[in-house]
Amino acid sequence: MKTPICEQYGIDFPLFAFSHCRDVVAAVTNAGGLGVLGGTAYTPEQLEQELTWIDEQVKGKPYGVDIIVPAKYEGKGEKVTGTQLADRIPAEYQTYVTELLASHDIPVEEKRRLGDSNLSGNTGEALLEVALRHPIKLMANALGVPPDYMIEAGRSSGVPVAALVGAREHAIKQARAGVDLIIAQGTEAGGHCGEVSTLVLVPEVLAALAEIGSDIPVLAAGGIVTGRQMAGCVAMGAAGAWTGSVWLTTEEAETAPHTVQKMLAASSRDTIRSAGRTGKPSRQLVSDWTDAWAPNPGKQQPLPLPLQSMLVEPVLRRVDKLATNGHEGAQALATYFVGQGVGLMNKVKPAREVVLEFIEDYVAAAERLAGSLED
Amino acid sequence: MKTPICEQYGIDFPLFAFSHCRDVVAAVTNAGGLGVLGGTAYTPEQLEQELTWIDEQVKGKPYGVDIIVPAKYEGKGEKVTGTQLADRIPAEYQTYVTELLASHDIPVEEKRRLGDSNLSGNTGEALLEVALRHPIKLMANALGVPPDYMIEAGRSSGVPVAALVGAREHAIKQARAGVDLIIAQGTEAGGHCGEVSTLVLVPEVLAALAEIGSDIPVLAAGGIVTGRQMAGCVAMGAAGAWTGSVWLTTEEAETAPHTVQKMLAASSRDTIRSAGRTGKPSRQLVSDWTDAWAPNPGKQQPLPLPLQSMLVEPVLRRVDKLATNGHEGAQALATYFVGQGVGLMNKVKPAREVVLEFIEDYVAAAERLAGSLED
Repeated sequence: MKTPICEQYGIDFPLFAFSHCRDVVAAVTNAGGLGVLGGTAYTPEQLEQELTWIDEQVKGKPYGVDIIVPAKYEGKGEKVTGTQLADRIPAEYQTYVTELLASHDIPVEEKRRLGDSNLSGNTGEALLEVALRHPIKLMANALGVPPDYMIEAGRSSGVPVAALVGAREHAIKQARAGVDLIIAQGTEAGGHCGEVSTLVLVPEVLAALAEIGSDIPVLAAGGIVTGRQMAGCVAMGAAGAWTGSVWLTTEEAETAPHTVQKMLAASSRDTIRSAGRTGKPSRQLVSDWTDAWAPNPGKQQPLPLPLQSMLVEPVLRRVDKLATNGHEGAQALATYFVGQGVGLMNKVKPAREVVLEFIEDYVAAAERLAGSLED
Repeated sequence: MKTPICEQYGIDFPLFAFSHCRDVVAAVTNAGGLGVLGGTAYTPEQLEQELTWIDEQVKGKPYGVDIIVPAKYEGKGEKVTGTQLADRIPAEYQTYVTELLASHDIPVEEKRRLGDSNLSGNTGEALLEVALRHPIKLMANALGVPPDYMIEAGRSSGVPVAALVGAREHAIKQARAGVDLIIAQGTEAGGHCGEVSTLVLVPEVLAALAEIGSDIPVLAAGGIVTGRQMAGCVAMGAAGAWTGSVWLTTEEAETAPHTVQKMLAASSRDTIRSAGRTGKPSRQLVSDWTDAWAPNPGKQQPLPLPLQSMLVEPVLRRVDKLATNGHEGAQALATYFVGQGVGLMNKVKPAREVVLEFIEDYVAAAERLAGSLED
């Protein structure tokens, strides 16, 4: 394909793949798409290692980095360490998690470790500095308007800046802030998402941008795990697709093995949009864990970002390990971010094969639509 | 267009338009689509009048009738009159509604009338008998598997039977029950809907039907108010689109004038999926009315179908009248069924113009997608 976005990013097919797994990023880029590494969970040193590895694999082909810097979070603007942030987690929440684990036969460590947060201090900026020492072709912020330093770094380095939006108002705000690429992500998406569906959001965002005279390209995201869905979005005016969930059941993915099995078995109705993992609404696989938090009636209200993640991430990593080893209680609790497209993810495949299937399916869909107009 | 579904139904463009307004039904049919009259709210005598009028307008062109016969409801299988059903509405609910009205400066009639229900007795069957005396080309059931008598009536009269589904499991059940057309309706739809988005549900339903060896055509529904969205769904494999919301702001529509203004001003985020109108989750325009019912935290749980409708429909019709006359409290309460596509509905148009714009936009979308593959 030779669409404007393909030309701009030097790719063959406008499929953008968000993954926390460097192997997926490299495989997608090498297959003609654009892999984007989710960098937030790394230390600057780890990110340096990951990107160096990717550079060796892709040999100059384009890839990107995503660093979450939300506009609002607990401790923003304060000089707080991770430990000081952790002190803000109420004891009752620790008790709530302990009891939830106990009810699933998971003994609790005497002094449970709380997670650190890359939102404390200026880790986001440090990660970005690392990324910019590599030949990245895109930097993305998956939550809210990118901070000024990201927009400025993009300008001065010539690297386009992308931002995810879940509502037309946010798209207008992002366009005015100066981003180069807007990802309109519907409510069916895995991870943080709004309430508007992809099929409505994409044309609504495109119309809103046209109204303010903006021609920023828009990628469609949310629920897209096949080439036919991507083609549907391009028919609506999207420049391509941003994907995440579909890579979680690839051979390369970092997903915990038991969770992969759950995903393969899940239908699209086995996800829930809940703040029980990060403190902001994000779509996840339904499990006893997601059942234990609001919006389920009468269940615990989550803490604000990033306190909820600090409380739960170490626990859920332990749950994943126990689940992998066959622990039944842990298997009932195990969950991960995933979109409604999980209902269409039924087989483990290499990431490269996913890209090739996307292309084939996209072409077939374009032919199907063109065929509908033939006499 | 000459796709199989166009041939089968004798239409030029596979756009199916559900409306409670006979003028919309006739206008869509006369413009080359297929209008479907929502018949449930009528008495058999009224339905006879409406269909006779439509027959005169469309002169043999194809149209359909939709009669809601849910699989489960309060009083099903019992010989109860509307009055006996009304006695099952707890006094506290009447008080709740009275107080809600009072808090909006709406005085309450001394003896408030409760609505009747066409689900009492065998009104569904009687309506169907009326419909079958007219040259209808489709009968639809918008809630659950059609009752046996509908499937049998379809078989003996040669009129195809359509059913709406919100999940893959329901599609399989419908196919096995023998329906001729499946409408896969996503969560963004106005009226009764499930939780899965149209972009995910359509390919998931198509895959599920293929798995059981069924080739029943599938219409996409939910959020579709433009030709580009319809084209996107046809690219994914849908045979066409089933629409509802987009007709509510046409010149012909029965929608209360104040509610039309609210819809034109609304964004896609101004809807909510709530059981506060019918007792089953349905998407509506957000208002003080929808705010007063679950799933809003701490608010009243609605009654089961059809008791909730019997309680609220007469009230909301009165609210509409007051709102039209400028009553501020009523304007804050006024609401109607509408999907997230309301964010793309910004102008009152004749129904015929909506169809023509759909066609133009569909063709442009098909060209856009085909263009993405050109060198």
